[in-house]
Amino acid sequence: MSYNSFGRVFRFTTWGESHGPALGAVVDGCPPGLALAEADIQPWLDKRRPGTSRFTTQRQEPDQVRILSGVFEGRTTGTPISLMIENVDQRSKDYSEVALAYRPGHADYAYDAKYGFRDYRGGGRSSARETAARVAAGAVARAVIAEVRIRAYLVELGGDAIDRTAFDDAQIDANPFFCPDAAAAARWEEIMDRTRKAGSSVGAVVECMAEGVPAGWGSPLYAKLDSELAAAMMSINAVKGVEIGDGFAAARLTGEQNADPMRPGSFDNQGDGKPVFLANHAGGVAGGIATGQPVVVRVALKPTSSILTPVETITREGEASDIRTKGRHDPCVGIRAAPVVEAMMALVLADQKLLHRAQTGC
Amino acid sequence: MSYNSFGRVFRFTTWGESHGPALGAVVDGCPPGLALAEADIQPWLDKRRPGTSRFTTQRQEPDQVRILSGVFEGRTTGTPISLMIENVDQRSKDYSEVALAYRPGHADYAYDAKYGFRDYRGGGRSSARETAARVAAGAVARAVIAEVRIRAYLVELGGDAIDRTAFDDAQIDANPFFCPDAAAAARWEEIMDRTRKAGSSVGAVVECMAEGVPAGWGSPLYAKLDSELAAAMMSINAVKGVEIGDGFAAARLTGEQNADPMRPGSFDNQGDGKPVFLANHAGGVAGGIATGQPVVVRVALKPTSSILTPVETITREGEASDIRTKGRHDPCVGIRAAPVVEAMMALVLADQKLLHRAQTGC
Amino acid sequence: MSYNSFGRVFRFTTWGESHGPALGAVVDGCPPGLALAEADIQPWLDKRRPGTSRFTTQRQEPDQVRILSGVFEGRTTGTPISLMIENVDQRSKDYSEVALAYRPGHADYAYDAKYGFRDYRGGGRSSARETAARVAAGAVARAVIAEVRIRAYLVELGGDAIDRTAFDDAQIDANPFFCPDAAAAARWEEIMDRTRKAGSSVGAVVECMAEGVPAGWGSPLYAKLDSELAAAMMSINAVKGVEIGDGFAAARLTGEQNADPMRPGSFDNQGDGKPVFLANHAGGVAGGIATGQPVVVRVALKPTSSILTPVETITREGEASDIRTKGRHDPCVGIRAAPVVEAMMALVLADQKLLHRAQTGC
Amino acid sequence: MSYNSFGRVFRFTTWGESHGPALGAVVDGCPPGLALAEADIQPWLDKRRPGTSRFTTQRQEPDQVRILSGVFEGRTTGTPISLMIENVDQRSKDYSEVALAYRPGHADYAYDAKYGFRDYRGGGRSSARETAARVAAGAVARAVIAEVRIRAYLVELGGDAIDRTAFDDAQIDANPFFCPDAAAAARWEEIMDRTRKAGSSVGAVVECMAEGVPAGWGSPLYAKLDSELAAAMMSINAVKGVEIGDGFAAARLTGEQNADPMRPGSFDNQGDGKPVFLANHAGGVAGGIATGQPVVVRVALKPTSSILTPVETITREGEASDIRTKGRHDPCVGIRAAPVVEAMMALVLADQKLLHRAQTGC
Repeated sequence: MSYNSFGRVFRFTTWGESHGPALGAVVDGCPPGLALAEADIQPWLDKRRPGTSRFTTQRQEPDQVRILSGVFEGRTTGTPISLMIENVDQRSKDYSEVALAYRPGHADYAYDAKYGFRDYRGGGRSSARETAARVAAGAVARAVIAEVRIRAYLVELGGDAIDRTAFDDAQIDANPFFCPDAAAAARWEEIMDRTRKAGSSVGAVVECMAEGVPAGWGSPLYAKLDSELAAAMMSINAVKGVEIGDGFAAARLTGEQNADPMRPGSFDNQGDGKPVFLANHAGGVAGGIATGQPVVVRVALKPTSSILTPVETITREGEASDIRTKGRHDPCVGIRAAPVVEAMMALVLADQKLLHRAQTGC
Repeated sequence: MSYNSFGRVFRFTTWGESHGPALGAVVDGCPPGLALAEADIQPWLDKRRPGTSRFTTQRQEPDQVRILSGVFEGRTTGTPISLMIENVDQRSKDYSEVALAYRPGHADYAYDAKYGFRDYRGGGRSSARETAARVAAGAVARAVIAEVRIRAYLVELGGDAIDRTAFDDAQIDANPFFCPDAAAAARWEEIMDRTRKAGSSVGAVVECMAEGVPAGWGSPLYAKLDSELAAAMMSINAVKGVEIGDGFAAARLTGEQNADPMRPGSFDNQGDGKPVFLANHAGGVAGGIATGQPVVVRVALKPTSSILTPVETITREGEASDIRTKGRHDPCVGIRAAPVVEAMMALVLADQKLLHRAQTGC
Repeated sequence: MSYNSFGRVFRFTTWGESHGPALGAVVDGCPPGLALAEADIQPWLDKRRPGTSRFTTQRQEPDQVRILSGVFEGRTTGTPISLMIENVDQRSKDYSEVALAYRPGHADYAYDAKYGFRDYRGGGRSSARETAARVAAGAVARAVIAEVRIRAYLVELGGDAIDRTAFDDAQIDANPFFCPDAAAAARWEEIMDRTRKAGSSVGAVVECMAEGVPAGWGSPLYAKLDSELAAAMMSINAVKGVEIGDGFAAARLTGEQNADPMRPGSFDNQGDGKPVFLANHAGGVAGGIATGQPVVVRVALKPTSSILTPVETITREGEASDIRTKGRHDPCVGIRAAPVVEAMMALVLADQKLLHRAQTGC
Repeated sequence: MSYNSFGRVFRFTTWGESHGPALGAVVDGCPPGLALAEADIQPWLDKRRPGTSRFTTQRQEPDQVRILSGVFEGRTTGTPISLMIENVDQRSKDYSEVALAYRPGHADYAYDAKYGFRDYRGGGRSSARETAARVAAGAVARAVIAEVRIRAYLVELGGDAIDRTAFDDAQIDANPFFCPDAAAAARWEEIMDRTRKAGSSVGAVVECMAEGVPAGWGSPLYAKLDSELAAAMMSINAVKGVEIGDGFAAARLTGEQNADPMRPGSFDNQGDGKPVFLANHAGGVAGGIATGQPVVVRVALKPTSSILTPVETITREGEASDIRTKGRHDPCVGIRAAPVVEAMMALVLADQKLLHRAQTGC
């Protein structure tokens, strides 16, 4: 029920501001006996870490995670797992202007309207830096759902979409864009260079696929798998849209076109009794419950609001002003969002696995 | 934390199956002293009620709501409000085939995979009939947020979009499609007649706008206003996508194009000190908190899975089969979803209002 | 998180007032496939039902339960189970005086202070009549924890305690006091007759024992088994104290006296590997987790506040007054509390069973 | 809903083990704008700190708290407040024996039964050391309820009770026992010296009084003020009983004796319109809602299970053994529990204040 926690029985709480001494997550409800070390978490943080290419912010953060509790002799104990990441490269002086005037598109004005004042350094709590804590928590979630394989990748950047027929899994980690289409990745380099030079920004669409989710996970009606995914994804900074399966495109299909026909599993000699689906318009979820097909989610990320072009705004005192956002920013927050989307997928699935186990014993 | 509840401090729990004796909602946390009678709830149910035009299911349900608790002498007492709607027109015999074979696109297979068996009559718990309980609860929520005006309307049906320049508020209740564009409504009649005759189905996009939401409502980071809206909307039957503000289109804009510049309120002689926004790409939410602009949500509803064209499927025993769904269905569930979308908007906002009050005293 | 719900994954919500049309409970999270019919619930309600002896209120309520959802063909489906009990014998005119002046010891003043007004008929929501809904929900919980045997009984009435050496399980249902000591039951008849004639009231202590709770149930640190039991019991009307195991008496023991030594299970030829405890001062809980011994809880119930002797009070307008509570009341609410204590024990244990399963898979 | 969180809208989560690197709490939902610094928290930790007299454990822990988030320029921001206390004086080698055999009365066996293994160093998560995190969180809660004055004190130690007529508020902080009766404190010194020399332990009863709680706080029916207090107190290590007001003694009174008569406030020239209560058997709570009188809670703490006398037990392998608990322990955990009881009272009241505000706007 708290504001900064997510999940029901596998539940995490994050804390920390962009320019505070540290940030972290407390993961509660993790099953005991799972192998877990800092080295299992660090690689995921490294994927999200800033400054790894010229296309992301140049803030230098090692994002070194420490496990402060809940693990004993290399295994989870079933007690809360406290994860902490110290902030290293804060340059709060960059934000003096932000203290005085609201950056349109940022949470500055809304936080002031809500709380009366705000920690303006680097966006404070509303900074995407908080997502490091999610990625760390997500790594714990992965240990809970070892049966599931999760991949997130960009399918669109700056309005330029990948060619689905060129989809190559191996490409995803081979370019700085988590882009499964090598040709698109090449084009995106140009887009990004142009954007960065212009002090502008672009949006992106991230897709995430989870394979191996057993039919049955999901908790109707108000903890539906897709509903939880929607909440999880929409809580990520800059996300403005979420789709499951065909999403908005499904609204343009007829019932016949949108059908996912089923055949007995033996048809394809799989022999495991599970049905074979002939399509996956539904994105692996029906009635809020996994069907056993890949779970497919797509999220739209708006362009970073921090741009060099001056934008009209007001000051804290209500005076007219304009603002150009200096500081160090990602010209496309969608890129570094991919590991965060993966983490949120893992966190939702871990929770649903345990919820399913609670109710059904399976 | 329960599976069938939604909300945090203004919270509702629904129960009931399509063909059980009744369905209902318990609304908990409603402030005391609000005027509330069955007559305040019934009109909203009437908007969602089946059988009001030839374009919806012909099941005849009066959807008469009874308040069983929580109201005394015409006012809410602060105790749980129990709302009950009796089912009248169940024709369970129509569903004999459904008991044996899974309807692709429906929750039949997933429910069986999860629970081992299911109440197959009319889809049981997974039926959109449950949304009547949401609409009833939503009417209570409206009493909590009297300062907010909510309208939902279809902006697309069967792939045919409205003309935004022809948007006419008065049209919304003047046609059976909650369509704000009279010309589109006329076209949709044809689409629907054609669809119904073909035993087919179409999807739709519903937009919902809430005006009067004060800046400050919203609960970062994991009860963000947009995150809660995403969960609420995705929990509605047949919804496959949710957008806030520009949504997926924002991913195709640059930072300059997507900016929502601000000016001092006095500029427009409003004199109330609130800033004037020159655009609303954000859909009224920044950092998970309302900005004071209209909150805009869009949801994509897939075409009804129940179609007359046979679709390949399997039986409960895993044998190959095919199924044509008879029974009485909405050829476009998106139409009757509009009042449900409104209700979910109201329910989320009522909860956020009280959460905001809890934390800030405002 | 709602005010009128209890439990975490096996969760129930109650609604209803003493003199409203009905009251009920929605049980959410119940595992699917359990046999459940109204006939499984009714006997527990009959034990709590008023008017079964001359020692309880003479209000005549059949307390007939209806299952409105969540059960199909005699088995739970995993969806919410809605239980409703209609009120039949309301005599609201008896309460006209209560509308005007506060009954000391009742919730009248506190409800007015909180909500500004209240449903004064029969105590409204604060009436012990609400516990019928708990008993109904508790019957569902019993189906979840078939391995556990629960008994509640009075160990003290009007300050007169049972003789522990005369404890006879068979007596509990053989007298109107759920008293395991026949001699005490005889004395209590006299106490009660005297109390009733004097228009006075007496308190009681109810003990509840749960046998068969497996070692491991319990959820440290803030959903500890004993902590949840304390909350559950203290939420029952008129309860002012809760003890686990030796309770307050343990505070007067030394560490040696309070020890519960353990021996290997084989010592007693049980052969099941479970340890044998040589004492149970702890009441079956250590560190918030069940040890496998019987779980023992004791609750203190104050005397009914409704007495015929006038008590000084104030009116709603703040004027001095005095009040004698007429209407139909239990001279010892502790008696009918026994089935409620049992129900709460069952509800807590069912929840803990599922929480344990969620986290550990056992 | 998580296992290691407490509270509903003012909510804290604790983490950490006795011999891990650190322990801490994340406080969520704290209102913005409250003055808060480490110096506001430290004094409360100092009261609970070990090693301050010869009557407590000699483990030397500075218990220095750090605020890692949620505070900016000396004021709370409304975002999560992360509090961390580093462990300094771990001597894990003392616990080698504990790794092998279960200490009766401790959570050792239960944790193993639940989780399969445990962090045995100093009791791991089940150590009372965790209560430092509660005390830190409690200090934040105090900032939320500045209108309330909370005092906890021992009213009984080793079976020796204070003389209520000698109650002297000023004494509470003048002796190492938080004892309001100087003569009793002198006797308790002897009891404790004797107990310590014998390697034994004694229990205690802590009473806590909160003055200034406004009538109306409390959330019926399943978040009742007394129900929440019962859960909060029972979650403290070694607590076996909780009473509100007269508690178990109330079960021995008649309705006349237990009455708390009311008079108009003007009677005593208070002029504020609040009623004057002529007694407080109820302990300031009726129907789960505060009446405006002092809220009075009493908790029973068992004697420390760690004693030098060998107790029969079993090893992890199920072999018979016996165990004497060496290491550094409090011979009476009840003493250092007083600040923890205060903290839990503050935490419950802060949550209830905000819940009340959410629902009623007051």
